[in-house]
Amino acid sequence: MLRGNLVIVQSGGPTAVTNSSLCGIVQEALRHAEIEDIYGAVNGVLGILYENLIDLRREEPETIQKLRVTPSAALGSCRRGLNSEDFDRILALFKAHNIRYSFFIGGNGTMGFADKLSKLADKADFELGVMGIPKTIDNDIVLTDHTPGYPSVARWWAVATRDAGLDNEAIYQPDTVKVLETMGRDAGWITASTALLKEKEDDPPHLIYLPERTFDEDKFLGDVEQVYKKLRRVVIAVCEGLKDETEEYFFATKGPLYTDSFGRGQVGGVADYLCKLIAIKLKLKARCDRPGTIQRVSTTCVSKVDAEEACIVGRIAVREVILGATGYMVALRRQPGAEYRSMTCLVKLEDVAGKTKYVPENFINEEGNFVTEEFIKYAKPLIGEPLPEYARVRKFPLKRLLPPYDE
Amino acid sequence: MLRGNLVIVQSGGPTAVTNSSLCGIVQEALRHAEIEDIYGAVNGVLGILYENLIDLRREEPETIQKLRVTPSAALGSCRRGLNSEDFDRILALFKAHNIRYSFFIGGNGTMGFADKLSKLADKADFELGVMGIPKTIDNDIVLTDHTPGYPSVARWWAVATRDAGLDNEAIYQPDTVKVLETMGRDAGWITASTALLKEKEDDPPHLIYLPERTFDEDKFLGDVEQVYKKLRRVVIAVCEGLKDETEEYFFATKGPLYTDSFGRGQVGGVADYLCKLIAIKLKLKARCDRPGTIQRVSTTCVSKVDAEEACIVGRIAVREVILGATGYMVALRRQPGAEYRSMTCLVKLEDVAGKTKYVPENFINEEGNFVTEEFIKYAKPLIGEPLPEYARVRKFPLKRLLPPYDE
Repeated sequence: MLRGNLVIVQSGGPTAVTNSSLCGIVQEALRHAEIEDIYGAVNGVLGILYENLIDLRREEPETIQKLRVTPSAALGSCRRGLNSEDFDRILALFKAHNIRYSFFIGGNGTMGFADKLSKLADKADFELGVMGIPKTIDNDIVLTDHTPGYPSVARWWAVATRDAGLDNEAIYQPDTVKVLETMGRDAGWITASTALLKEKEDDPPHLIYLPERTFDEDKFLGDVEQVYKKLRRVVIAVCEGLKDETEEYFFATKGPLYTDSFGRGQVGGVADYLCKLIAIKLKLKARCDRPGTIQRVSTTCVSKVDAEEACIVGRIAVREVILGATGYMVALRRQPGAEYRSMTCLVKLEDVAGKTKYVPENFINEEGNFVTEEFIKYAKPLIGEPLPEYARVRKFPLKRLLPPYDE
Repeated sequence: MLRGNLVIVQSGGPTAVTNSSLCGIVQEALRHAEIEDIYGAVNGVLGILYENLIDLRREEPETIQKLRVTPSAALGSCRRGLNSEDFDRILALFKAHNIRYSFFIGGNGTMGFADKLSKLADKADFELGVMGIPKTIDNDIVLTDHTPGYPSVARWWAVATRDAGLDNEAIYQPDTVKVLETMGRDAGWITASTALLKEKEDDPPHLIYLPERTFDEDKFLGDVEQVYKKLRRVVIAVCEGLKDETEEYFFATKGPLYTDSFGRGQVGGVADYLCKLIAIKLKLKARCDRPGTIQRVSTTCVSKVDAEEACIVGRIAVREVILGATGYMVALRRQPGAEYRSMTCLVKLEDVAGKTKYVPENFINEEGNFVTEEFIKYAKPLIGEPLPEYARVRKFPLKRLLPPYDE
């Protein structure tokens, strides 16, 4: 087998378990004689372009192990498009450093980049193993059951929604409507996860709006009113990427404050917008929770399933590349059987690159304001170990002895 | 000793450990023959006024035990002022139900109410034990080292800030400034807690603004610029209750959307306002995290110290009232010694009622943009059991082999 050095690149937005994949790759690489040095690129492809590489063999084994419980992206990440000179530069750098094994941890954009690199290396007759490691809280990569990173953000929201519901229910009056704004630009997987600990109809959330459906304000207001009439409180989960029929995002202010390096406007603020709408049109008090980036890197709700799988896809990528695989992403599949168990398989990077997996029709209810039981069946096992059961006092009423209260 | 029934009232905003106090009261009450029935008021004083009482003796012991891990307020709460007829009504109800022991779990407003009730009962020659149980995430009750509820929200923010800092640091470019908005209307205790896991100068947060100091926009922009120049990233913690020199709150929109039942405007939105300010004046990208009510009832970060103390103040209140105490709040004191240990003591409700404990001068730095080491010493033990240590790769750089990258 080809001997050479290995490089790991972390891309895009961080997650709670991105570093668990990094840990898996490094620990597995250390076991194989074919792999000489183990490099990390500082801040994603920028680290390659600017030749900011670090030597991961020199890190303490304890540090590598602790990556399992360290959120975000320890090597640093970036969001950056690449032109053809950039690709030439990358190949030149790989040759100069005898990098023969490369690992790209990222989303569907990153998989496209890895695919292109793999093909260019092939064309240039440069023997190079290129492997993609799926990672995104958005869960929007095709051909994998789910993406590492998603189960933990789903667990975070499942818990936060259950707690927010108890909060909303506890105080008589002040916050009758609560709007939770989740991340997820184009796909509503994260928003959907707010339903994962709901047990009874009046448990939160009561309404869920995903970007897979065009958002209709009048329908929304009608939905809110209906729940409010029944329960006198409403917990609503909305995706930051909701769009109206003109395909425009909702922003709290006029237009986005910023655009990112791909020219996409910074979304966020739809919950504020909807709170105002509810206040004006329905005369109800509404308040929003917008935890922002806290949701995606929180260590307090890491799903054990997620941390384990993130590590495994990294390990498997190393084992496969050594056996000669290149141009593949390590995907997750569900094993048949009642109990949740996953296995890995390889899918071609070109089949994944740039594609987006939306929440399918059968996971969204007909009204477009909630998820179906099928979604729950799909996502519930991902959030991992059971959560503490809360007490629910049964409230046995006492016989009244006084005349009614006269306000 | 007087035999009679007992009632428990939960007031104001919920916390992660309010129900732990409820659990402590009920479990202790069950051990004393003087206490006959154990009632809960549904939705705070509204439950008393409308005679919505429930029988807590009929709940399963398992349910009572599970209250220890159940956030929010299981009996329901409210925010409500009371007039003198209301107090007459309450005394009439207590007489009708032979309620001789009453427990009010709440903040400084609730302590004022309890104080008044205790005095009116005395005047009416109605033998009644009235005890206050401190509970507020705001930590703004005087004469107690801290309030149950605060340690858990402090732990939540300490973790969230550490994680948000890793997130902010990981991605090159997009989110260079992050503004975290914490709760706390008049006192900055919660905002200050964002510093509790900071170890090195460049760890987050880099700047902290408390409502104890008048907020000066120009000074703020200068502070942000200075940190940015040094680190190329800034994590800022601000209190939702910041005010400028005109004593006005900052809102994302013009004025508050709502006022609460005490006529106070619903604060919140200062972080959005500051992000815009940073974008316009400093031309930096800024993004805010505003977790809202999620921070106050999160079960994911309950401090063991907090859950334990919340239960104990409830238990002690029962033991003391049976011995004849009335008109007192159970306060927490710190025992002398290097290791943190607390003890309880009784303070008069009238000495606590309506007063606010602000973050003292010696806990805020001279510049008014951070907390002091004294604050850390005070608050660090409260957040409880140690948190997992994160990996920090040392990033041993590789020698460069290529000419510099030409953009």
